[in-house]
Amino acid sequence: MILPKSHRLTDPQVAELTAIVSEFGCNLQPIIGAVRTIYAILGDERDELMINRIEGLSYVDRVDRIQSGFKLMDRRSDLATHEIKLGGVTLGKELFVIAGHCTIDPKNPNYFYETAAAVKEAGAHVVRGGVWKPRTNPYSFQGDVKSLDILMEASQRTGLPVDAEVMDEEHLKMALDAGVHMLQIGARNALNYSLLRAIGKAIAERDTVVLLKRSIHMGPIDEFIAAAEYIVSFGNPNILLCPRGTKPGLDGYRNHPDESITPLLKEKSWAPVVVDPSHSVGKAAYVPACSLAAVAYGADGLCIESHIDPAKGIGDDPKQALTPAVLAETIQQSKQLWSLRRGEGITAAV
Amino acid sequence: MILPKSHRLTDPQVAELTAIVSEFGCNLQPIIGAVRTIYAILGDERDELMINRIEGLSYVDRVDRIQSGFKLMDRRSDLATHEIKLGGVTLGKELFVIAGHCTIDPKNPNYFYETAAAVKEAGAHVVRGGVWKPRTNPYSFQGDVKSLDILMEASQRTGLPVDAEVMDEEHLKMALDAGVHMLQIGARNALNYSLLRAIGKAIAERDTVVLLKRSIHMGPIDEFIAAAEYIVSFGNPNILLCPRGTKPGLDGYRNHPDESITPLLKEKSWAPVVVDPSHSVGKAAYVPACSLAAVAYGADGLCIESHIDPAKGIGDDPKQALTPAVLAETIQQSKQLWSLRRGEGITAAV
Amino acid sequence: MILPKSHRLTDPQVAELTAIVSEFGCNLQPIIGAVRTIYAILGDERDELMINRIEGLSYVDRVDRIQSGFKLMDRRSDLATHEIKLGGVTLGKELFVIAGHCTIDPKNPNYFYETAAAVKEAGAHVVRGGVWKPRTNPYSFQGDVKSLDILMEASQRTGLPVDAEVMDEEHLKMALDAGVHMLQIGARNALNYSLLRAIGKAIAERDTVVLLKRSIHMGPIDEFIAAAEYIVSFGNPNILLCPRGTKPGLDGYRNHPDESITPLLKEKSWAPVVVDPSHSVGKAAYVPACSLAAVAYGADGLCIESHIDPAKGIGDDPKQALTPAVLAETIQQSKQLWSLRRGEGITAAV
Amino acid sequence: MILPKSHRLTDPQVAELTAIVSEFGCNLQPIIGAVRTIYAILGDERDELMINRIEGLSYVDRVDRIQSGFKLMDRRSDLATHEIKLGGVTLGKELFVIAGHCTIDPKNPNYFYETAAAVKEAGAHVVRGGVWKPRTNPYSFQGDVKSLDILMEASQRTGLPVDAEVMDEEHLKMALDAGVHMLQIGARNALNYSLLRAIGKAIAERDTVVLLKRSIHMGPIDEFIAAAEYIVSFGNPNILLCPRGTKPGLDGYRNHPDESITPLLKEKSWAPVVVDPSHSVGKAAYVPACSLAAVAYGADGLCIESHIDPAKGIGDDPKQALTPAVLAETIQQSKQLWSLRRGEGITAAV
Repeated sequence: MILPKSHRLTDPQVAELTAIVSEFGCNLQPIIGAVRTIYAILGDERDELMINRIEGLSYVDRVDRIQSGFKLMDRRSDLATHEIKLGGVTLGKELFVIAGHCTIDPKNPNYFYETAAAVKEAGAHVVRGGVWKPRTNPYSFQGDVKSLDILMEASQRTGLPVDAEVMDEEHLKMALDAGVHMLQIGARNALNYSLLRAIGKAIAERDTVVLLKRSIHMGPIDEFIAAAEYIVSFGNPNILLCPRGTKPGLDGYRNHPDESITPLLKEKSWAPVVVDPSHSVGKAAYVPACSLAAVAYGADGLCIESHIDPAKGIGDDPKQALTPAVLAETIQQSKQLWSLRRGEGITAAV
Repeated sequence: MILPKSHRLTDPQVAELTAIVSEFGCNLQPIIGAVRTIYAILGDERDELMINRIEGLSYVDRVDRIQSGFKLMDRRSDLATHEIKLGGVTLGKELFVIAGHCTIDPKNPNYFYETAAAVKEAGAHVVRGGVWKPRTNPYSFQGDVKSLDILMEASQRTGLPVDAEVMDEEHLKMALDAGVHMLQIGARNALNYSLLRAIGKAIAERDTVVLLKRSIHMGPIDEFIAAAEYIVSFGNPNILLCPRGTKPGLDGYRNHPDESITPLLKEKSWAPVVVDPSHSVGKAAYVPACSLAAVAYGADGLCIESHIDPAKGIGDDPKQALTPAVLAETIQQSKQLWSLRRGEGITAAV
Repeated sequence: MILPKSHRLTDPQVAELTAIVSEFGCNLQPIIGAVRTIYAILGDERDELMINRIEGLSYVDRVDRIQSGFKLMDRRSDLATHEIKLGGVTLGKELFVIAGHCTIDPKNPNYFYETAAAVKEAGAHVVRGGVWKPRTNPYSFQGDVKSLDILMEASQRTGLPVDAEVMDEEHLKMALDAGVHMLQIGARNALNYSLLRAIGKAIAERDTVVLLKRSIHMGPIDEFIAAAEYIVSFGNPNILLCPRGTKPGLDGYRNHPDESITPLLKEKSWAPVVVDPSHSVGKAAYVPACSLAAVAYGADGLCIESHIDPAKGIGDDPKQALTPAVLAETIQQSKQLWSLRRGEGITAAV
Repeated sequence: MILPKSHRLTDPQVAELTAIVSEFGCNLQPIIGAVRTIYAILGDERDELMINRIEGLSYVDRVDRIQSGFKLMDRRSDLATHEIKLGGVTLGKELFVIAGHCTIDPKNPNYFYETAAAVKEAGAHVVRGGVWKPRTNPYSFQGDVKSLDILMEASQRTGLPVDAEVMDEEHLKMALDAGVHMLQIGARNALNYSLLRAIGKAIAERDTVVLLKRSIHMGPIDEFIAAAEYIVSFGNPNILLCPRGTKPGLDGYRNHPDESITPLLKEKSWAPVVVDPSHSVGKAAYVPACSLAAVAYGADGLCIESHIDPAKGIGDDPKQALTPAVLAETIQQSKQLWSLRRGEGITAAV
């Protein structure tokens, strides 16, 4: 839909527009209104180049796109019936919980082993542990590959699948070789399309699950879902969308909590939504409330940082990690709210 | 706390600073660190003029204020034990619900009478009805004073107190003369200090309750609470803080839902928090989820738009209003979540 | 233009939509695309109630409005040829400059008299002086009516017109009675429609000029221009649009400078744009650069805080005010850039 | 500087804090104010882990960091006298201009050759041409390695150095092997620390120049400069900081122009600032004004998209690219403003 700057276009302008859209196999149809005439593009108007050409014309105000840049991720695609299973849970059938350290301390592996056992006890289905960490400060601790062994050992001991963030192809290869079950893509890499493609390719023949965090800028929903499409287009549809707060932060929080985006995501895509309350609010005291709010908005799961003794943690854990006791209570209440929402039939979206 | 641009200040700079703070009855104390020296202001550093003078100095990077601009609203003030009661509810003791029309249609009063009866039946404690409306478009319907009579008649018929937004002193006088129980200050007027003062004065000797909406820009919490202080400083402490979403909106919503600010408000102020989910999300389908999320974050109450037949409503009602049936279900689930949070002891804030 | 959630609407849905739009004298026309059908509203689609009714339908994604809420302010209205003159300048013919105190100090009137003389000498056409001040902190200095006499005395001494902000009808009456030539509406009141109407009415028969600041939230341009329409609709078209930075601030500035909005405003409205660099950046050191940037973007004028001795100022002056010497240099360079842009023919907008 | 939630800490709390900071070789010093006691950390308070530990304590409100995460990029580092030279220009001595295509069309190399000649003629010092493109839509054209040959051929023909964006290590290797003189890191990869490190390593022994775009979220300045530190820490200090607009966009622009950040960057870092007006505003008509505004704010250079025939361009060129004639005029006026600012002595920052 083309909106001109003036009330209606001149004949030469219409001719120019018609020529452009026909290059792309489309037709132009004027919609003559009482006050203004607008111009519909008939055909597949998803071609970015055609849109860019038209938006570059001096007499065009803007082009309204009514189609998105994703196909497989669309709620109406054949993948909509795809079931994602991990840690004994089928996403959407019961509340799914990932929990564990922001960062594994390679010098103190026992903290992680104890945490892993404790989050399993508290009800988590996947153990999370950061091996490599993206740091604003180049001189900060950036992670240690020894932590990968610790992560896999924790998987062995608990019998639970594990989740780790990868930031480049080297990490990706190491994580897959080690057998990591769930790969996490952090907010800073959420639009790093080279990495998204590399991951898509690498897991095409595997059953690895990907947790894709939302970019830290408040980008449009379509951008988020299209990033997932990059991965899924290679053949593995095990993708979870993870809102984790956006910038600028709500005064007093690390980010602006955005669990409220859940019903909007579900209107457009079939993908399960797993909210990360720990990064949204950035402080342990607020995480239980944020977890419940995520479930209130219809989230399928939660990704929560927890540590057997938060003060001894590294990375964000001293600030954000819940003790296993608070985690257990949070999971229990979240499950009750999950049942309340399902049983009583209040639905967030139509 | 004064942060200089350089590693430490020169003697003449320190002398100039000392002279300024002593004008305001304060002293300066250098804090000599290993890498940088900063300068504490000893005394009451709330004086804006002193801060402005210091921030204007070319060698000062910024001044960190560690005190807020409010006193009575502070969680530590004597008012912290004040109980606000309306519609048979003591705020904080049970979930408080305001419900009704965005805008009363003066040509069709029966819609409002029926809505009032229905929201009472659904469990609301106060009936809301817009008499005057702030409109972006100057040629849109701006409200009609006849609606004030309709509002009061609805109060008579239901026995419930009523709530209306006032936008200027003329509205204020009319609303108080008519006996409106709760005055609402809209987001566009949230920083209209002349109006806040006028309201504070007018209700000083009354038991009127004020619902103060948060400004639509994502202002700091202190600004919100200080706006409430304008009203309370005249003597009537019946104030409720109302987050209602901020701009820019989350992609697909009218605003960016901000019920998550609730625990942050409660850390600083004793005032009850009543969230407006209707304006946050701006579409009826998402209001139930947003209501639950507000309770998840610890809100004391909800302010929800409802209409006996939303499609027949005016103002925002066709878009935002819940039917009484959905309102009833929303209230019921919200109450269950309220109990769940209380009974189980998960607290949002420390 | 109605965008449905599905690929096309069912017959009963189309019938319902048709019924709604015909209530408002409009017709519905489906635009059948290859992939999706959308529905044009033929007629005047500016009616907010009609739009709200349609947006409330569960099968409607959103309604694209292609018409704005203003008429007189439109670049294509008859007012587009209206010339605004003040202080010997016709807006648009030469660079227009307002300068003076953020706040007049009623205890030290000589500062203001000296500033007024100095800004005249520096090249300013209007003297600005704050009489009343909106303050976040209710206990801060809120202004003093004695300052109004000082303002008018400065006008007498310099022969220049004067500008003051009004925050309520009481201020408005006093300012007009005193003969203030230009009324300023601050960012916190930019959407206070009761005040906008009151000002419009009060100056309908006068030649008073209004400087309307942009709201501190990053609202849409149409909202800004429609706010001006509130005033102009009463008959006096002497209105200047004033961008002054939006929230959240750019890291290190008081606000996010928004002089860049100037060409966008000029595409939609004929009104002159006068940028306030002082509030945008909030610190004197950055004001000259911001002033030049405003002229680079095509602004017709600047509103700059200046003080004969900034450190002795009150309100924001110690932080923001330029000395008269820096003001003079800023005006001189801004005029040179103004000529450069005009003479060489680079135009910001088509 | 530690700000407690209460007026002062208890003895056990102070003991706990003291223990934590001493683990990191720091000391704690209470600053006893009239109203509140705060606690200074004496020593190097840059350790993120220490800060995280402290921020995790329930009685701590927040920790104010007064030191940044960069050292080499600091305005006070020895690198501050480093001169960056490219295309015959020493950055800071005269206005530096990069110009060329957003995207090279591999099927029509002549457009690029003609553009390269034309931007040289217009006064550009470096020719820009996109070889690979990050695309929101996974099915859009993502670039073609053939374009790399075209880029280098254009360098041969014009004798100018060339600039291309790299998105992963594979691109990096190819670009360096081909002899690309300037590497561009796009906004989506601005926080992709793996890529930043890879680039830093790869160019450590070369004289390649890097143009680092600012992230599209409105992140803090320190984050931007620290990203540059990642690269420079490997030994090559040829880095240019490139503001290019942030999200959310100013109503009507692609982004919110942020050339105004220039003086703030220069207060903290010695690195030259080269503004990208094309992505800031996103439409050719506004680019000249934005270029002048960048120079007004003190930018050292401009990175402008230009095309010999914009309507025939691909990528963003049909929307954003200037014709060579408008580019020439823009450069000429920008140089005049550059001289005006220098000659007359108005400085943006102190």
